[in-house]
Amino acid sequence: MKQNIYDNPIFFSKYIALRDSGITYNDFVEQPAIKSLMPDLTDKRVLDLGCGTGHFAAYCVENGAASVLGIDISRNMIEEAKKRNIHQKIEYICSPIEDVDLPNKTFDIVISSLAVHYIENYSKLIQKINRVLNENGQFVFSTEHPFITARKEMNNWVLNENGEKLHWALDNYQEEGRRDHTWYVDGVVVYHRTISTLINTLISNGFVVERLIEPQAMSEGLEKMPKLINEKRRSSFILLRSKKVSTISG
Amino acid sequence: MKQNIYDNPIFFSKYIALRDSGITYNDFVEQPAIKSLMPDLTDKRVLDLGCGTGHFAAYCVENGAASVLGIDISRNMIEEAKKRNIHQKIEYICSPIEDVDLPNKTFDIVISSLAVHYIENYSKLIQKINRVLNENGQFVFSTEHPFITARKEMNNWVLNENGEKLHWALDNYQEEGRRDHTWYVDGVVVYHRTISTLINTLISNGFVVERLIEPQAMSEGLEKMPKLINEKRRSSFILLRSKKVSTISG
Repeated sequence: MKQNIYDNPIFFSKYIALRDSGITYNDFVEQPAIKSLMPDLTDKRVLDLGCGTGHFAAYCVENGAASVLGIDISRNMIEEAKKRNIHQKIEYICSPIEDVDLPNKTFDIVISSLAVHYIENYSKLIQKINRVLNENGQFVFSTEHPFITARKEMNNWVLNENGEKLHWALDNYQEEGRRDHTWYVDGVVVYHRTISTLINTLISNGFVVERLIEPQAMSEGLEKMPKLINEKRRSSFILLRSKKVSTISG
Repeated sequence: MKQNIYDNPIFFSKYIALRDSGITYNDFVEQPAIKSLMPDLTDKRVLDLGCGTGHFAAYCVENGAASVLGIDISRNMIEEAKKRNIHQKIEYICSPIEDVDLPNKTFDIVISSLAVHYIENYSKLIQKINRVLNENGQFVFSTEHPFITARKEMNNWVLNENGEKLHWALDNYQEEGRRDHTWYVDGVVVYHRTISTLINTLISNGFVVERLIEPQAMSEGLEKMPKLINEKRRSSFILLRSKKVSTISG
């Protein structure tokens, strides 16, 4: 199933309001981490899988990228991107990441910010990325940490009678596959994968792992969103930078 | 602090009785996993860090290794090894792993089975291993999974009133360092590290990660130790195989 929760109007309006607040996990945890993993962008051709409103595409161009191709499944997102982050070096395509066909294009860098957990077939995704990357090209992505996706039941903070967080509930770690989460609306489908799968699938498809980050919150974030202190207790995100060292066949 | 719980007589007798039972996490989870990660041993010179009673040293020789040097902090363990697994191709040294000095030796393979979580300074250990490995030599190790070591409080299975396991309690993940555990005796000191640290320290010290395993139980183990089904819910161990691709200085 291809997840397109971002074209649900209730979800979309709440999501956009949240992101526009500037006070989010993205602002203080995930985006600083993914930026810290980025290679030098000067003159690079970038593919952004799950580009959303194009904020990261714009970041790449501001930092010297020669071009960015942004892909997103959501018509809402692409429309927003074409309003907010239009630039002659940026092109947007509305398509599920899984279906996008780029026969004559190659890229120096592929990035994906918090979209990989929506993709059912991870190894097929990695193979597709291998095919469009140049030799020594890099793939940088962030995704929900397996800590977050593992347990089939939600509400993973276990609270005491005063509402204090006692610990995080982990379970079902080895049972990979679909999880139905609630995030503004019911039926947000994500796919749980173990850390072994995230890493070994890269390695067996022509990539070398260069760095892994389980980010904590920026200190500015801790002031504006005190709950981000909980990123010390369990990580919400995991990020990987890998480099293509061989072209896979097929 | 260098951990030498294995020379505590109560701990040692209980540990040996457990291992001799043949019905352990080692037999059905960790050892099959580390064996599955081993490269071809034919004519290889092997260093075994935390060799215990020498069972893995013997396994290496049976599988073609030219020589094995086994290191263990525990006098009890080395004495047992010299009774149980003596072979002209195996040499044993009683020393903390941290102190062992091998100025004129090089190895093709370094292995370490469930000893790394006792070592306080992981990056110094990896640097030492880099220095004694030949170019393209491999380092294979198993260690307690961060799921197990993260939380400062113990008894991580949260039970309901019928004693059923509800979930695993995770906490303190980003707070690396010493944990005081109870395992037969109080005061078993282990060191918690994040998965990022386990991996990035290898990469930044001249290694390429080849494979990561979070093992489940063999089916034979599930029959003899039904509780091993819980390895599906959270992993007890993490294993990494990495290859030395550059020599670090110093």
